[in-house]
Amino acid sequence: MEFKTIAFDVMGSDNGLIPAVDAAIKLLGEQKRLKIIFVGDEKEIRSCLHKKKYNHDQVEIFNTTEVIDMKGDIMDIRRKKDSSMVKALELVRDNKADAVTTGGATAPFIAGCHFILGKIKGIERPGFMPVIPTIIKDKVTLLLDVGANLECDPEDIEKFAIMATAYSKSVRGVDSPKVALLNIGEEESKGFDMHKKAYKLLKGNKDLNFIGNIEPRYLTSGIADIIVSDGYSGNVALKSIEGIGKMLLTEIKSAITKTLWRKMAALRLKKAFKEVSVKFDYKNHAGAILLGAKKIAFKSHGSSDKKSFYATLRMTYEAIENDVLNKMTKALKL
Amino acid sequence: MEFKTIAFDVMGSDNGLIPAVDAAIKLLGEQKRLKIIFVGDEKEIRSCLHKKKYNHDQVEIFNTTEVIDMKGDIMDIRRKKDSSMVKALELVRDNKADAVTTGGATAPFIAGCHFILGKIKGIERPGFMPVIPTIIKDKVTLLLDVGANLECDPEDIEKFAIMATAYSKSVRGVDSPKVALLNIGEEESKGFDMHKKAYKLLKGNKDLNFIGNIEPRYLTSGIADIIVSDGYSGNVALKSIEGIGKMLLTEIKSAITKTLWRKMAALRLKKAFKEVSVKFDYKNHAGAILLGAKKIAFKSHGSSDKKSFYATLRMTYEAIENDVLNKMTKALKL
Repeated sequence: MEFKTIAFDVMGSDNGLIPAVDAAIKLLGEQKRLKIIFVGDEKEIRSCLHKKKYNHDQVEIFNTTEVIDMKGDIMDIRRKKDSSMVKALELVRDNKADAVTTGGATAPFIAGCHFILGKIKGIERPGFMPVIPTIIKDKVTLLLDVGANLECDPEDIEKFAIMATAYSKSVRGVDSPKVALLNIGEEESKGFDMHKKAYKLLKGNKDLNFIGNIEPRYLTSGIADIIVSDGYSGNVALKSIEGIGKMLLTEIKSAITKTLWRKMAALRLKKAFKEVSVKFDYKNHAGAILLGAKKIAFKSHGSSDKKSFYATLRMTYEAIENDVLNKMTKALKL
Repeated sequence: MEFKTIAFDVMGSDNGLIPAVDAAIKLLGEQKRLKIIFVGDEKEIRSCLHKKKYNHDQVEIFNTTEVIDMKGDIMDIRRKKDSSMVKALELVRDNKADAVTTGGATAPFIAGCHFILGKIKGIERPGFMPVIPTIIKDKVTLLLDVGANLECDPEDIEKFAIMATAYSKSVRGVDSPKVALLNIGEEESKGFDMHKKAYKLLKGNKDLNFIGNIEPRYLTSGIADIIVSDGYSGNVALKSIEGIGKMLLTEIKSAITKTLWRKMAALRLKKAFKEVSVKFDYKNHAGAILLGAKKIAFKSHGSSDKKSFYATLRMTYEAIENDVLNKMTKALKL
């Protein structure tokens, strides 16, 4: 049987190896055609795998001696040749794996994708694309770029839209994904020159289902399947909603458990709160693909737990299974 | 008795005159030294005031025949000479009033402040400064600019910080207001050149209590008293948190009232939800001052209800009472 293989950098994230390895074992149990190469300290990996049940054919270990930690910078990609992040990227570059997943530091990972994997022909600036939950049941929105770049030019934005459209069609099964441009107003005349030019390009591209500008307040409305943005604004928007969401839920939790009387009533609403929190749980959406990298490259949140890693690994697997890279390359017509 | 006078443009907002006039009457009852000049269609204003109790010495009506509606653009300031917005601004320019408040369209209002009121000496780009609630009880954060400008240069940002510091000290009574710079990371090296230069200016200014960069996720953490930003990013951040906040509360409401059983439990938590929603009710924070305009100029949200208008009018009154303009001008040392 031919495996789909993920090179999984299990070092360098905030919570150690255990949640990473546990998440991988869970997914291996579900996807029999998946193989995972655990890249990192072999001894530590073996101790995590010890006594766990899994099909040994589906697992490899690639030992490395260095770690790029969360404080790591871009230069670490050059300095730490035997780090788990560098080696995982090299496994993909050398076609020993179909995709790479890491929970490690963002900046070195982007640099590593750039220097080790390279970019799809015609792409100058790959963009980070997380999946964000919306108020519409089972509907998500793809948002990019959220910070792989600061500035993007209108052509980058158009290419983000083309790649994300191919992704949305093949991985998420959306027929004609609606694309919107993040901007401070709905009118075509809003924003910087970059926005106005990007608007024109998107509108003029017959392969795209462009629905116009979208204001940040509608990010999670489910109006669009894809929201394209420069990296700076996308990052500001994403971090703003993450922050306020977390804060509001914390506040509500503290208010409804302040007295015993309230606690008792809150218990009866447990299921209701669960429904809301499942819908917006960022742990189910902790992964982002670096769209435009020459290979499939996923980053999971630095503070990922088992649930987060599982979600990111599953997304990685789905991207391989659905042959996203080829579909994006074709869509780019370059 | 010498009155503090607000020229109140009561036309052009989404909800008509009634909430505007009602809010004004409420505040007039509380502040005996306040006079309000209602600017707009006299007949409509009279009908709103009819049978209401208020001290007639505190009220004037200035009749106008035109309205700049929510779709109004910048040119309307020149075209509609007898609009309530233009006339209200002129009353302040001609020292017939100490401040102006409107719920009308944003773009014409900014243009009107620019052309009719002018700017404080040394200020090139006035900035919109709303007050945002934080998780810390009774603590708010001043955020500017949230969209009066797209781009701002580092010098604008420094002046925002100086003016907002003077405002925070005099109106909010904060001793040494903590100033932070909105950025995508905490390190000094993050963001665009503009951010790096602004960081240096803020750090080097001994009159400011600069605490460094702040990420959008901590906007409502209460860490800073003042957050300075370029207008574009500030707008994206503000609209993102407004959108997600509203959405989350809607979701929770719908989840806890889905069944009769849940509704009954939710009733017992009514007070708890009230506590949270009061804390984050944007209606209490619907007003923003255009900091840097030559006179005190407040904009209330276009969809303001009575509560929103009341909050904005109260902020306007406090700004007059505390002589903010002179304090800001002094602080600028220009």
